[in-house]
Amino acid sequence: MSVSPSLSASLIERFAAIVGTGNALTEPSDTQGFTQEHRDLYHASTPLVLRPGTTQEVAKILKLATETGTAIIPQGGNTGLTGGQVPLADGPPAIILSLTRMNRILDIDAVGGTMTVEAGVVLQTIQEAAEKVGKLFPLSLGAEGSCQIGGNLSTNAGGTAVLAYGNTRQLCLGLEVVLPTGEVWTALRKLKKDNTGYDLRDLFIGAEGTLGVITAAVLKLFPMPAGRQVAIAGMKSPEGALELFRRAEALAGGGLTAFELMARIGVEFTARHIDGVRDPFAEPHGWYALIEISSNLSEEAARDQMEHLLSAALEDGIAEDAVLAQNETQARDFWHMREALSWAQKPEGGSIKHDISVPVAAIPTFLAQAEPLVQEVVPGARIVAFGHLGDGNIHYNISQPVGADREAFLAHWDAVSAKVHALALSFGGSISAEHGIGQMKRDELAAIRAPIEIDLMQRIKAAFDPAGIMNPGKVLRTR
Amino acid sequence: MSVSPSLSASLIERFAAIVGTGNALTEPSDTQGFTQEHRDLYHASTPLVLRPGTTQEVAKILKLATETGTAIIPQGGNTGLTGGQVPLADGPPAIILSLTRMNRILDIDAVGGTMTVEAGVVLQTIQEAAEKVGKLFPLSLGAEGSCQIGGNLSTNAGGTAVLAYGNTRQLCLGLEVVLPTGEVWTALRKLKKDNTGYDLRDLFIGAEGTLGVITAAVLKLFPMPAGRQVAIAGMKSPEGALELFRRAEALAGGGLTAFELMARIGVEFTARHIDGVRDPFAEPHGWYALIEISSNLSEEAARDQMEHLLSAALEDGIAEDAVLAQNETQARDFWHMREALSWAQKPEGGSIKHDISVPVAAIPTFLAQAEPLVQEVVPGARIVAFGHLGDGNIHYNISQPVGADREAFLAHWDAVSAKVHALALSFGGSISAEHGIGQMKRDELAAIRAPIEIDLMQRIKAAFDPAGIMNPGKVLRTR
Repeated sequence: MSVSPSLSASLIERFAAIVGTGNALTEPSDTQGFTQEHRDLYHASTPLVLRPGTTQEVAKILKLATETGTAIIPQGGNTGLTGGQVPLADGPPAIILSLTRMNRILDIDAVGGTMTVEAGVVLQTIQEAAEKVGKLFPLSLGAEGSCQIGGNLSTNAGGTAVLAYGNTRQLCLGLEVVLPTGEVWTALRKLKKDNTGYDLRDLFIGAEGTLGVITAAVLKLFPMPAGRQVAIAGMKSPEGALELFRRAEALAGGGLTAFELMARIGVEFTARHIDGVRDPFAEPHGWYALIEISSNLSEEAARDQMEHLLSAALEDGIAEDAVLAQNETQARDFWHMREALSWAQKPEGGSIKHDISVPVAAIPTFLAQAEPLVQEVVPGARIVAFGHLGDGNIHYNISQPVGADREAFLAHWDAVSAKVHALALSFGGSISAEHGIGQMKRDELAAIRAPIEIDLMQRIKAAFDPAGIMNPGKVLRTR
Repeated sequence: MSVSPSLSASLIERFAAIVGTGNALTEPSDTQGFTQEHRDLYHASTPLVLRPGTTQEVAKILKLATETGTAIIPQGGNTGLTGGQVPLADGPPAIILSLTRMNRILDIDAVGGTMTVEAGVVLQTIQEAAEKVGKLFPLSLGAEGSCQIGGNLSTNAGGTAVLAYGNTRQLCLGLEVVLPTGEVWTALRKLKKDNTGYDLRDLFIGAEGTLGVITAAVLKLFPMPAGRQVAIAGMKSPEGALELFRRAEALAGGGLTAFELMARIGVEFTARHIDGVRDPFAEPHGWYALIEISSNLSEEAARDQMEHLLSAALEDGIAEDAVLAQNETQARDFWHMREALSWAQKPEGGSIKHDISVPVAAIPTFLAQAEPLVQEVVPGARIVAFGHLGDGNIHYNISQPVGADREAFLAHWDAVSAKVHALALSFGGSISAEHGIGQMKRDELAAIRAPIEIDLMQRIKAAFDPAGIMNPGKVLRTR
């Protein structure tokens, strides 16, 4: 590691000169918004936040960083959940490079189905811009109002539309990346097929800013479905939800645009704490599925499929109850409940959160086996499991026992995680399905993977970032 | 480059001992089937063909190769079109590592939708095994009866189903790879989502055997559509075909499982030379589209969509004529015509072939502008353009003028290619949409890409294969 132990005033000045002093923040009151993240898990400061306005400024910053061995942390909307975008408490002083000012939509090609954007464009802005030209940009997640596409790409973000459209990696055709040396790789390509050498694009996507800074991207746009139907079904068990998912997939194929699972307690939490959410049924059910079916043909075609699915599921006793959103407002309300699940845990005290995936068919068994493991560590812990059943991806979140001490509960995080992750791995699963590694899961990743896999990643890291300046200590240990 | 200038008898013996002498071929009469490829463009011999039966044998071979600086060329079904799988005429002596004996299907999980296979399984065998459990493995291409999945993965093969299902990269969940050092990276994962570190899988996919040897893979299986309809439409122009494609896509969405374009002359060639193919219409048309629509619901639903598409296209004057396959036999005949196009060029003399892609909307303009450029170099050349219009990928093939000398015509390959590729690039296109780089396009790739891009690839190559033994001189120049 050649990262310098401290950042001198003169070095800060040289960096600041690149972006102009107005875009170089050093006061703790100014930088705090960039170092604090939503979960309040990481607490470290930065001597400098830089807010470049152009790719050329980013290039100059990285060139100077490599020359001086200065650590750089790229940051988008600061919504990451594994601490990838904030400083390490035990790391070298690191500059936060905020892409927020690079927020231009450079091109929309409705005919070709592409949008070219700078890294700092907020996801919701992209969704809305696509809609304006009658297209769909399907990436959708809770933080869409503030997360930025550069961060989505760097973490290969998932969300609720992965089932039909894939994760962020599948939604990207081309990239512009500034390398640690300050060189710019411009590959803003719009091609569906291009087999010309190594897949550099997919290497930068999901690298969490450790190999370079994504400054722009070409995104895929999709036809806006002609019709969309949203429903909620109540079931006794995850087995029922899995069977309903299989039927929905067989019926709607690629038209099944979401299939989300929610435990009863999550529905209770949202009804209790979130404005505008109410229990969708008179009677409680053990588990709930939010189902979205889209059709390229018509609203009626989507409704026909949904009604067929639900009435058969009720008849066959797979679902105990089901309700189809009667209009767009109700559909939004259903989605609001699902999206608010994580927030609804806050008023209930501390939460220990997981982002595991297993093969889809293993989800019921995983859920059945995980709960006693957790209860063994924290008796009375409340399992608020929910997530993307169709992707095999469950946010296995755990709220503290009623009345317990928050900090004492959170002190069990590692012990609980160890059990939950070991169980997921026993199914051939993942410890991070969509949130990435960041600083939170770095050492765990190294522990669960064969040395050769970590070594290959380290070789790539060393080849792309020999000075070790790019988000050091994230994903991989510095060496 | 540390590759040794010659292969001694004792070294050949050491390699042969790993697989057993019966699986080590040295006689030219035995090795010739591995060095000659379909297009007969490359002519170089090998001192040794090794046919390992296990991953462990592959590992031992690569370890010894790295220790002794011996070049290794991995080979599947030897159907590659850019010379990636055969020796370089000006390269070091290189061992061909044939994966043919590693042809076991290791696991089929119909419920989870995965199949785990060794690299040497023939594509058609995989398709048939999927079908037996009621599933679809969609990868489909002309060579499917002999190409192997390891080669498909290493070249990120495309084919006719990319439109709906993606190329080989999108069809793979996990890999087992033997590294040049002999270490084995085992990542036969079955997860839909897994954000844990750099995307090594997609780096090996499409690397054409230059970073390691893919020995096994987990493939995605899809629901078998309930119904499938195939039709051929005749049109005046590529513009008409593009408009028909847009309508088909809007109507069928992900159910549009193929949209292939064919120039009139290609239809003539197949009717003339291929058994069982006849002109689908009484009158000739300038261009033809083969359209396939699949439905998860029923045969009727697919037929309804196809009939709706075709009748509207006829009414609106977009198609001049159209015919829907009346049964499975006729559907297969239509596909046979499309798949035989490349072969039907053989009896017409020499052909210069291209595999370009451009943004879909640019295809008519590309076709209009390319022809005069070709005619300028070779007056009377016959343009047999066809391919995956929906992917923006055209096989811009050129048959020699009637009565011309084959060799004299082929001598124009580079001059013609330079013009065709420059035109594709002017649309932001690719010089190799699905066939890869191999030896054929290596220097051209280096010439058209920014130095930083080639340099990044070289850094990866050096990091993974420091001894430079893996398929040296393919994709990238050795350095």
